[in-house]
Amino acid sequence: MQSAPALQKLLDELERLPGIGAKSAQRIAYWMMNTDSATVLRLADAITEVKRTVHFCSRCFNYAEDDLCEICQSADRDGGIICVVSEPRDIAAIERTGAFGGTYHVLGGELSPMEGVGPDDLHIAELLRRLASEDVREIIVATNPNVEGETTAAYVARLVKPLDVTVSRLASGMPVGGELDFVDEVTLSRAIEARRPL
Amino acid sequence: MQSAPALQKLLDELERLPGIGAKSAQRIAYWMMNTDSATVLRLADAITEVKRTVHFCSRCFNYAEDDLCEICQSADRDGGIICVVSEPRDIAAIERTGAFGGTYHVLGGELSPMEGVGPDDLHIAELLRRLASEDVREIIVATNPNVEGETTAAYVARLVKPLDVTVSRLASGMPVGGELDFVDEVTLSRAIEARRPL
Repeated sequence: MQSAPALQKLLDELERLPGIGAKSAQRIAYWMMNTDSATVLRLADAITEVKRTVHFCSRCFNYAEDDLCEICQSADRDGGIICVVSEPRDIAAIERTGAFGGTYHVLGGELSPMEGVGPDDLHIAELLRRLASEDVREIIVATNPNVEGETTAAYVARLVKPLDVTVSRLASGMPVGGELDFVDEVTLSRAIEARRPL
Repeated sequence: MQSAPALQKLLDELERLPGIGAKSAQRIAYWMMNTDSATVLRLADAITEVKRTVHFCSRCFNYAEDDLCEICQSADRDGGIICVVSEPRDIAAIERTGAFGGTYHVLGGELSPMEGVGPDDLHIAELLRRLASEDVREIIVATNPNVEGETTAAYVARLVKPLDVTVSRLASGMPVGGELDFVDEVTLSRAIEARRPL
């Protein structure tokens, strides 16, 4: 029994977050109780603001505050080359290298029969639509270098190749079995430069 | 580079939380993006509500929505016996056992020279003030069964004993070196019943 219903409600909501169990929720709630209101309410405001202003880019499914994300809106990016990634955070990882000047396409996951994720659950149809309507000469498939990522890459390559578009995969050099998001910038940068045809 | 400033702000605020690093913050933010607004905004509301309505009980320093917490307000609790705990969450742990019908006093931490926590940082003076003004016959010191908790218990016992108040400590039976909050309910229940004089 918690003595304050509002606190119990906060604990319930915190436990809904991925990776947060009962103990973590208690620690976070206690921190919130002991921290000044301004600091704590900045988090509440940030959550509200994100849900109000941020959605997915209508073209590439990156995070966006307008209809298109900042990268899709930029005149400096090469629309002829699309880097296909699993999640928006992978874009952040690649942008940090500064080694890529094209645009992106976020699949929203990777094929995984185990978890019941099939082609229709990913933004693959939207990618094919972009290839039909935009002037794209190359696709770099930058899904994670693990089983799901490789499967997804092979699937995408098979669909894209007949469309007269060069398809490449990030070069080896990345640790196998890992996740793209964890790779250091130099390794990731080299992997982009030495990408191999698929 | 994240493409949405509001998202970057959310990540910054999430990383302020205890136990949340950059990776956890990304995972939580992505979950928030992919979850319906109603669910996510319930968390923002719960945070705001807690900061608006919950503070510390003016008597025992438990969480409270009024001046006094629910336990201090209750006519069913025995005010003659005070269980002294380190943090409000320890109250929740003891209440779950149903083995204690007295009131509580939250110290707000434990003595720790290593972390610079001295007697003045804890609500010990307030406990002595309660013993002077309330009709208390017994104190159960339920600080954690580790070095800081034992030190704190010995310190409190030394101050309280001259005041003609029985001082006891939770019985052994709890795993030594652990934290009260992790103990199962049966063990904790027995430890309350078999508390030993200090």
